[in-house]
Amino acid sequence: MTSADIPEPPRSETEFISGLHAIGDERYHHRHPFHLLMHEGKLTRGQLQTWALNRYYYQRHIPIKDAAILARSKDLTFRVAWLSREQATRGEGILPGTRFAVQAYLHLVSQRSHLEAVASSLTELFSHKLIALRMDRMRLHYPWLVPALDYFQGRLTQAPEDAEYALAYCVKHARTREQQDLAYAALRAKCDILWAQLDALYFAYVEPGWPPPGAFRPAKGTE
Amino acid sequence: MTSADIPEPPRSETEFISGLHAIGDERYHHRHPFHLLMHEGKLTRGQLQTWALNRYYYQRHIPIKDAAILARSKDLTFRVAWLSREQATRGEGILPGTRFAVQAYLHLVSQRSHLEAVASSLTELFSHKLIALRMDRMRLHYPWLVPALDYFQGRLTQAPEDAEYALAYCVKHARTREQQDLAYAALRAKCDILWAQLDALYFAYVEPGWPPPGAFRPAKGTE
Repeated sequence: MTSADIPEPPRSETEFISGLHAIGDERYHHRHPFHLLMHEGKLTRGQLQTWALNRYYYQRHIPIKDAAILARSKDLTFRVAWLSREQATRGEGILPGTRFAVQAYLHLVSQRSHLEAVASSLTELFSHKLIALRMDRMRLHYPWLVPALDYFQGRLTQAPEDAEYALAYCVKHARTREQQDLAYAALRAKCDILWAQLDALYFAYVEPGWPPPGAFRPAKGTE
Repeated sequence: MTSADIPEPPRSETEFISGLHAIGDERYHHRHPFHLLMHEGKLTRGQLQTWALNRYYYQRHIPIKDAAILARSKDLTFRVAWLSREQATRGEGILPGTRFAVQAYLHLVSQRSHLEAVASSLTELFSHKLIALRMDRMRLHYPWLVPALDYFQGRLTQAPEDAEYALAYCVKHARTREQQDLAYAALRAKCDILWAQLDALYFAYVEPGWPPPGAFRPAKGTE
C-alpha cells in the first residue's frame, strides 16, 4: 500500500474554520467594485435604485430558500445522482455568469411545458445569419482560427432543419393565446440566457475587464 | 357578458411567426457588443480564447438539454406547479444575471446535500462587517436613503446568530475531508452567486453601462 492509497485526513476544526474565512477574504462580495463605489459615494441615485431593485428580487427568495432547506433536511435521496452530474459539469475557470445561464436553460427545458422547452430552441431561427457572418469575419480577421471553424460549418446546414421542425411543432401546439404567449416568453428567456453569457464575458474580459475570483485568466500578451 | 370576459383570440399562424421573428430582431445576441467587436476583428486572442472556453461549456450541455426534452416529452406533471412559481418570481425589469444567480442558489439548496445547503449560508459569517460599513457610508453619502436602512439594522444583530448556528452545524457534519471540501465548494459557489449579481449590475449600469433588452432603465437625470 502506497501513501497515495491513504485518504487525506480531515482538517482540524480550527483549520477547517480558517479555510472558510479564507474563502470569504478572497471571494466574498465586499471586494466587488460595485460595493467600493457605493462605499465611496460614487453611485448615482439611479444606480442605487437598480441595486435595490435587484437586491429585493434576491432577498424575497430567501424565505423560499429557507423553506426548501427545512423541507428536505432529512432527505438526501438526490445526493448521489446530483453529485455525479455536478462533477460532470464543473468546468474549471468558467465564469459563474455562464454557469448560471446554462443552469437556467437546463431548468427551463426540464421543468416547463414541452411547448415552452421547444420554443426556447427557436433561437435557431436566427442563428444561421449570425453563424455565416461569424465564419466570414473569423476568416478575415483571425486566420489562425480557420481550422476550428468546422463545427460552425456543420451547423450552417443542420440548424435550419432543426429550427423548421421546432417552429412547426410550436405552431401546431400553441393553439391558444396563452400558449402562444408562453412560447414567446420561453423564446425571450432563451435570448436572455444567450445575452447574459456575453454580458458576463464582456464584463470580465473586455470592459471593464474584471474576471471574478477563480475565473480563467488569459496568458500575458493575449489578454 | 362584457367584452372583458371574452378571451383574446389566438394570433394567426403568420402573425405568431412574425412575432417570434420580432423577438429575434430585438433580443437575439447578434446585437451584443461582444459579437460586434468579434465581427470587427477587435477582440484579442485572449478574449477569443475566453469566448471559446465559455461557449464550449454551454455547448456541451446541449446533449443533456436535448435528452431532458426527449425524456419528458409526454410528461406535463410539473407544469401547473411550475407555472404558478414562475409567475410568483417573474419580476419585471430584473437583470437576467440576477435571475440566473438566484435560480442557481435555489438549485443549490434544494438539490445538493443538506450540509452543502447549510454551508452555502456561511456567507453570513462575512456579512456583518460589510453591512455595518454599508450603513455607515449610506448615512454619509446618501442621507435620503436613511429611512430604508432599518432592514440592514435588523440584520446586524440577527445575522451573527444565524451564522454561528450554521457554522456549528457544518463543523459537526463535515467530518471527512471530502465533506469539508464539499462545504468549501458550496461556500465558494454562494460567493460566486453574490459576486455575479454585482457583476451584472455593474455591467448594465456603471461601466460600460449596457442594460440588456427588457431590463429596468433608470429615469433620466438619475442614471
